[in-house]
Amino acid sequence: MAIETPDSAHLKDWLREYQRVRDASESLCAPLEKEDYIVQSMNDVSPPKWHLAHVSWFFEAFLLTPFLKDYRTLDPAYDFLFNSYYETYGTPFPRANRGLISRPTVDDVYRYRAHVDDAMSELLTGPPAEHVEEIERRLTLGLHHEQQHQELLLMDIKHILAQNPLFPIYRNDLAPAPECAFRELGWRVYPGGVRQIGHDEAGQGFAYDHEMPRHRQFVEAFEIADRPITNGEFLEFMRAGGYEKPDYWLSEGWQRVKQEGWTCPLYWLEREGIWHYFTLGGLMPVNLEAPVCHVSYFEADAYAHWAGARLPTEAEWEVVAEGLAPRQGNFVEQDHLQPTVAGASAESGQMFGDVWEWTGSAYRPYPGFKKLAGSLGEYNGKFMSGQMVLRGGCCATPQDHIRTTYRNFFPPSARWAFSGFRLAREA
Amino acid sequence: MAIETPDSAHLKDWLREYQRVRDASESLCAPLEKEDYIVQSMNDVSPPKWHLAHVSWFFEAFLLTPFLKDYRTLDPAYDFLFNSYYETYGTPFPRANRGLISRPTVDDVYRYRAHVDDAMSELLTGPPAEHVEEIERRLTLGLHHEQQHQELLLMDIKHILAQNPLFPIYRNDLAPAPECAFRELGWRVYPGGVRQIGHDEAGQGFAYDHEMPRHRQFVEAFEIADRPITNGEFLEFMRAGGYEKPDYWLSEGWQRVKQEGWTCPLYWLEREGIWHYFTLGGLMPVNLEAPVCHVSYFEADAYAHWAGARLPTEAEWEVVAEGLAPRQGNFVEQDHLQPTVAGASAESGQMFGDVWEWTGSAYRPYPGFKKLAGSLGEYNGKFMSGQMVLRGGCCATPQDHIRTTYRNFFPPSARWAFSGFRLAREA
Amino acid sequence: MAIETPDSAHLKDWLREYQRVRDASESLCAPLEKEDYIVQSMNDVSPPKWHLAHVSWFFEAFLLTPFLKDYRTLDPAYDFLFNSYYETYGTPFPRANRGLISRPTVDDVYRYRAHVDDAMSELLTGPPAEHVEEIERRLTLGLHHEQQHQELLLMDIKHILAQNPLFPIYRNDLAPAPECAFRELGWRVYPGGVRQIGHDEAGQGFAYDHEMPRHRQFVEAFEIADRPITNGEFLEFMRAGGYEKPDYWLSEGWQRVKQEGWTCPLYWLEREGIWHYFTLGGLMPVNLEAPVCHVSYFEADAYAHWAGARLPTEAEWEVVAEGLAPRQGNFVEQDHLQPTVAGASAESGQMFGDVWEWTGSAYRPYPGFKKLAGSLGEYNGKFMSGQMVLRGGCCATPQDHIRTTYRNFFPPSARWAFSGFRLAREA
Amino acid sequence: MAIETPDSAHLKDWLREYQRVRDASESLCAPLEKEDYIVQSMNDVSPPKWHLAHVSWFFEAFLLTPFLKDYRTLDPAYDFLFNSYYETYGTPFPRANRGLISRPTVDDVYRYRAHVDDAMSELLTGPPAEHVEEIERRLTLGLHHEQQHQELLLMDIKHILAQNPLFPIYRNDLAPAPECAFRELGWRVYPGGVRQIGHDEAGQGFAYDHEMPRHRQFVEAFEIADRPITNGEFLEFMRAGGYEKPDYWLSEGWQRVKQEGWTCPLYWLEREGIWHYFTLGGLMPVNLEAPVCHVSYFEADAYAHWAGARLPTEAEWEVVAEGLAPRQGNFVEQDHLQPTVAGASAESGQMFGDVWEWTGSAYRPYPGFKKLAGSLGEYNGKFMSGQMVLRGGCCATPQDHIRTTYRNFFPPSARWAFSGFRLAREA
Repeated sequence: MAIETPDSAHLKDWLREYQRVRDASESLCAPLEKEDYIVQSMNDVSPPKWHLAHVSWFFEAFLLTPFLKDYRTLDPAYDFLFNSYYETYGTPFPRANRGLISRPTVDDVYRYRAHVDDAMSELLTGPPAEHVEEIERRLTLGLHHEQQHQELLLMDIKHILAQNPLFPIYRNDLAPAPECAFRELGWRVYPGGVRQIGHDEAGQGFAYDHEMPRHRQFVEAFEIADRPITNGEFLEFMRAGGYEKPDYWLSEGWQRVKQEGWTCPLYWLEREGIWHYFTLGGLMPVNLEAPVCHVSYFEADAYAHWAGARLPTEAEWEVVAEGLAPRQGNFVEQDHLQPTVAGASAESGQMFGDVWEWTGSAYRPYPGFKKLAGSLGEYNGKFMSGQMVLRGGCCATPQDHIRTTYRNFFPPSARWAFSGFRLAREA
Repeated sequence: MAIETPDSAHLKDWLREYQRVRDASESLCAPLEKEDYIVQSMNDVSPPKWHLAHVSWFFEAFLLTPFLKDYRTLDPAYDFLFNSYYETYGTPFPRANRGLISRPTVDDVYRYRAHVDDAMSELLTGPPAEHVEEIERRLTLGLHHEQQHQELLLMDIKHILAQNPLFPIYRNDLAPAPECAFRELGWRVYPGGVRQIGHDEAGQGFAYDHEMPRHRQFVEAFEIADRPITNGEFLEFMRAGGYEKPDYWLSEGWQRVKQEGWTCPLYWLEREGIWHYFTLGGLMPVNLEAPVCHVSYFEADAYAHWAGARLPTEAEWEVVAEGLAPRQGNFVEQDHLQPTVAGASAESGQMFGDVWEWTGSAYRPYPGFKKLAGSLGEYNGKFMSGQMVLRGGCCATPQDHIRTTYRNFFPPSARWAFSGFRLAREA
Repeated sequence: MAIETPDSAHLKDWLREYQRVRDASESLCAPLEKEDYIVQSMNDVSPPKWHLAHVSWFFEAFLLTPFLKDYRTLDPAYDFLFNSYYETYGTPFPRANRGLISRPTVDDVYRYRAHVDDAMSELLTGPPAEHVEEIERRLTLGLHHEQQHQELLLMDIKHILAQNPLFPIYRNDLAPAPECAFRELGWRVYPGGVRQIGHDEAGQGFAYDHEMPRHRQFVEAFEIADRPITNGEFLEFMRAGGYEKPDYWLSEGWQRVKQEGWTCPLYWLEREGIWHYFTLGGLMPVNLEAPVCHVSYFEADAYAHWAGARLPTEAEWEVVAEGLAPRQGNFVEQDHLQPTVAGASAESGQMFGDVWEWTGSAYRPYPGFKKLAGSLGEYNGKFMSGQMVLRGGCCATPQDHIRTTYRNFFPPSARWAFSGFRLAREA
Repeated sequence: MAIETPDSAHLKDWLREYQRVRDASESLCAPLEKEDYIVQSMNDVSPPKWHLAHVSWFFEAFLLTPFLKDYRTLDPAYDFLFNSYYETYGTPFPRANRGLISRPTVDDVYRYRAHVDDAMSELLTGPPAEHVEEIERRLTLGLHHEQQHQELLLMDIKHILAQNPLFPIYRNDLAPAPECAFRELGWRVYPGGVRQIGHDEAGQGFAYDHEMPRHRQFVEAFEIADRPITNGEFLEFMRAGGYEKPDYWLSEGWQRVKQEGWTCPLYWLEREGIWHYFTLGGLMPVNLEAPVCHVSYFEADAYAHWAGARLPTEAEWEVVAEGLAPRQGNFVEQDHLQPTVAGASAESGQMFGDVWEWTGSAYRPYPGFKKLAGSLGEYNGKFMSGQMVLRGGCCATPQDHIRTTYRNFFPPSARWAFSGFRLAREA
């Protein structure tokens, strides 16, 4: 089974796929010291240990407990400790306190993972016939869930290490940035009309509930940039007083600027007159040609105002992405873990990879949206307030996790995701 | 000039209209004690005194100072004290401190109003020829602005008095609720298709920048209730454990429920087993047949989930409202200052008046939106994050202030507006 | 009765004294606008209206209700609204919300005062014989209580007006500062030994419970300054970097300096290179020869460290004060409402009046302390943690309210009292 | 050298003593998992890793850098990371963020300790002759400093583990509580008079600056209990509604009760009708005969009020302790790490060990107090506001760290220290 095509799954494929995804999580944590697994550097961040345990709990709660006969948990308390936010499932452990829990230890968590993996192996090699379909559905969801947490792991590890005045290096063997010519920003024109948006439930491949149903939207004619905005371009905004003039900012954004003292993207730092940024490969000079990253929606929107443009809507973004070559780009597999040269893949418009692109669309349900039944229905639908949609995946996203219809979402003030943006404007 | 049709304005009409709107603000404050004018009961609320001064400042800053030769302010400090949030105009006085300023006194503020009124009279009777058009544009905006603050005045006065364990009565001579038969909730069906939404810039009448441009949206077939949800219906939700089960709630909403201890709409109070609510006419038993009011978006959305429905989008709402009889309903002129019997006006679907109706649409710009130039551009556009659209006006809205295309907006947690909701569902 | 000598009281004296004290409170409020009565500029401040009502409630709760037959309250809700902190008496209205209550109005509060005054007049002209002694005790306490609130009124009015960028003037007819020669600071030496401290219960005159019992303390030999530190001297500390160097500060004090951005005493403001301060007579240049005022304990202590000295203990202060001429100084009756020239009264050491003097003594019970019985026991004893003792009264204190043994107390961070300090050192 | 008698020190003794104290710190951490070293469970708590590094930094900053020729730090950043609060030495790393720093790792910290130990060994075996006296003074201080942190380590480890719903056990091989008869509480009477208090600078043994100078105080006659209050006695207070009635409480204490929901001592937990507490040996039933522990000053004071008594002053405590047998009791060496049976050592009055005893004395300087010169002066003096004195050491204190004159101090709301109390009353 490729997790994209669950309908072709066979038992052997299931297990191989399961192991592949589970291994990937542990690989990401291999460079960590035990101490790094424990820290919660802000409420939005979870300790890496917690991520590793929580994704295992997901399989336990939604697959092993209901479907594996005589399944015994390793420790009943984990059911409480590693429930993230499923209020209808039980009382989740308070999110803000995840960094206060030194036990179970990292070794305990790996033992928990092994325990769950053994049981999953048992379940997947001999599933109860009457539940095969539901098991496959939940397995697929569980693997996508774990892939999401792989990206969160990288975001959170970066944030944790960034608190440290020693600027610890996560990995010093990252793949070097590719050599490729920098392209000036170009614009593409799209005509208006009624368009189809979203995932077709009857079609192929997995998608989350909130990507459905496929439905019609009227999209006015528009133009869109053929690559994201770069660090160099963003620096011009900074030098033009972008962070000092309220004119460009949403009211909430301007409050953030003043209260939190924003003067540059997150992780940027001026040293002896040169802008640096903290990366998973350590502190280094800002690459002016790479897409700007770790900016909030407010900063993206302010830049767009300053530039006389706007952000694309998610419908516009999807219309563009659907018409282009299959998704390619700078994903986690490229092993840069940092955006690289903007505009590298000319044909694809660099829609995928590098940075999640803030859209101008609030995260709301599609017409006809139905959340999953039961506790799994708490996956996406309940976050549909106060957040903005991002599209396209980033340098920390597994390549087979992303889709044209994929909707990511964060509060407009969030900066610790690998988030950038591209411009659009009226045609 | 009726403020709806500025293009037919003549000088005499201007002045008459100006005086009519200005008088209305003062009438609303007539029942107040001086002490009531001073209190700021929460950050979102402004002292009535401040409202009266701020709307005058608006005329001073945007009409008198630029267009009336030799205009002299009464006190230069007012320019700072009564700027609400125009960051590009100057530094606004901190919002949270409005209740700490006992001077200028209420009498001073009325003197300030008279001073501005005299100067406006001078300006409007002999406007400089080259600016007539701009003056009319700003005058119209200024009057609508003051009307908005008339509604805020009533909301804020209610909130201020409600803090008081004595439950002071704002007016004991409010118009009694009309007698009319209660109707069971019915549904209307609308077909899908491309629809026109928003205000036509070239058309008649005033509209705010954010209601424009008129543009196309694809609206799927839908059904919509022919009246808002009533107090009695909402009480069923409460009795069914609506405030106790996370299942129905958005995640942010559920946090509010727990943190702020919500168990009923704002201003409700159980006394000896009977639900009462605080109104501008004092504390009284809840009218079960009237539209529920003072609920947040989160409560409206939770009710809809519980009822197996959803809230209409603002496009759906506007499609429905446009097809119905001219706006009529329970507005401020009816002098109830409280929602009355739901479903009273069967043909109109009770779309207008009584309660602002939460829609399921996040407050975002229409495609092609352009904010006003200069500081006046801070009027609507900069609030386009984190808020939801409400439609239709309420029992505190001046009747000639509302339009089919009118977009109101509040954060989803706000409860002190006269806000209710109606249901929609897929056809 | 002079309130100092209740044992000589007769009925006529009682009433005359009651009226004198009550009138004084209303005189202090005479210059206020109604609007000024409503504001609560921080949690520690109460609206003037509240002070006027609360002191009346005190008489109602502790004298009229228990001792006046058939006494009827004006409004039973006042018993809740105007209870300050007597937890054993009932549930006090939340302190932080006192500024949210516009009703009862100011006129209502004066009516309440008149109602209480009428009843008190009745009680005092015909007290039940069996309770005469207790009535006198409580009357005396109630009058001292009201005098305390007279000083709080002035402190709070100053703080309220100071929030206002218009710098409103409380009174422009204050008595001008006296002309008298400025004296250089001198030192007096006191030998060590066992001393008597505190009020003798068997002696003459009223004192609060926490001033008793008179007891012995061993006081080492010490030297003490013959006047408080002046604004000019404090300015030297500021210019020497006093607010920038942690060396001089208690840890908690240094935190305040950084968190609240202290760089000068409260109410100071630099304008075109000249230090001004806000006074009850408006904004004016700092009088360099007057005692420094509106400094916290932390600032007083830091200054003393910088100057190579320390603050006197309350025992040292009392030993010195007892040996000097009867208390005289700049009290509320002098009608300056601001400290005047330091060292004016050479013989008295300027121990009384002008500024409350921070001592180096934490506010704790004397050995053998017994709080009053019943709810009146909540008067002083329950505040004996986290506060420091101040001595000597200030320019807002009624002259007959102060005593050599009088113990005032505030948290060490408080600055809105008329608080200054003098130095001491080892002999 | 015994650290009590530095004047008899010789080089060999110095080094042996140094190694003994350093080893003790590491022994306390031996039962920890690496993960436990990282957590900061509240602002007052530091991660164990931080304690181990900070005490080493103390030797580096105050001994190695100034006195060891060519000393090279392991990492210059440690000088910033492990400075606790010495503002005059450099900018300390923000206390609240100590738990956000995963690196240096635990192994790094042990390497740092070894690096410092090697250098200290070099310094102590060949100290520069002209600085021998100062080195000895600072060495003694550094060792006492490390012993203080040994106690903090145990307090903090307990607090960290207590956050965890798994109730992890620090050690399951603690020494069992001794068997000894429980004694009813008795009282001892002491006459009044002038007493000598504090450490004699010219005398033998080490003491902190704030224990000096020895000076006279007048102490009135008093009675004092011959043992601390027990858990069983405290439970009577709880059952009598002690946490529900404001009468017994200081105002600040009552606020804590309500805001933080106090209903029992910290770490207590009712399970199936039986009171348990969390200990370093795990969760266990409350031993009713042991001294009550983990109560704040507010709880101690409220109990005393309820019992018609008061807490002793620190002078009273010291007068009593000085007259008794040499200090003995339940210290860290007894290896209970929990208070044991109250009143076990009848002659000694159980003044030492088991629990730190809250006194009724605010933590203020003795008359004539002089803080140490330079940055070391920040050790004690700057905390002399807002805290109360505790006496006698506890079950986590090294026996040779405590003295009759030893003054410990905590804010009155602190509960995570091993703090209990005994009663006193007027004679």
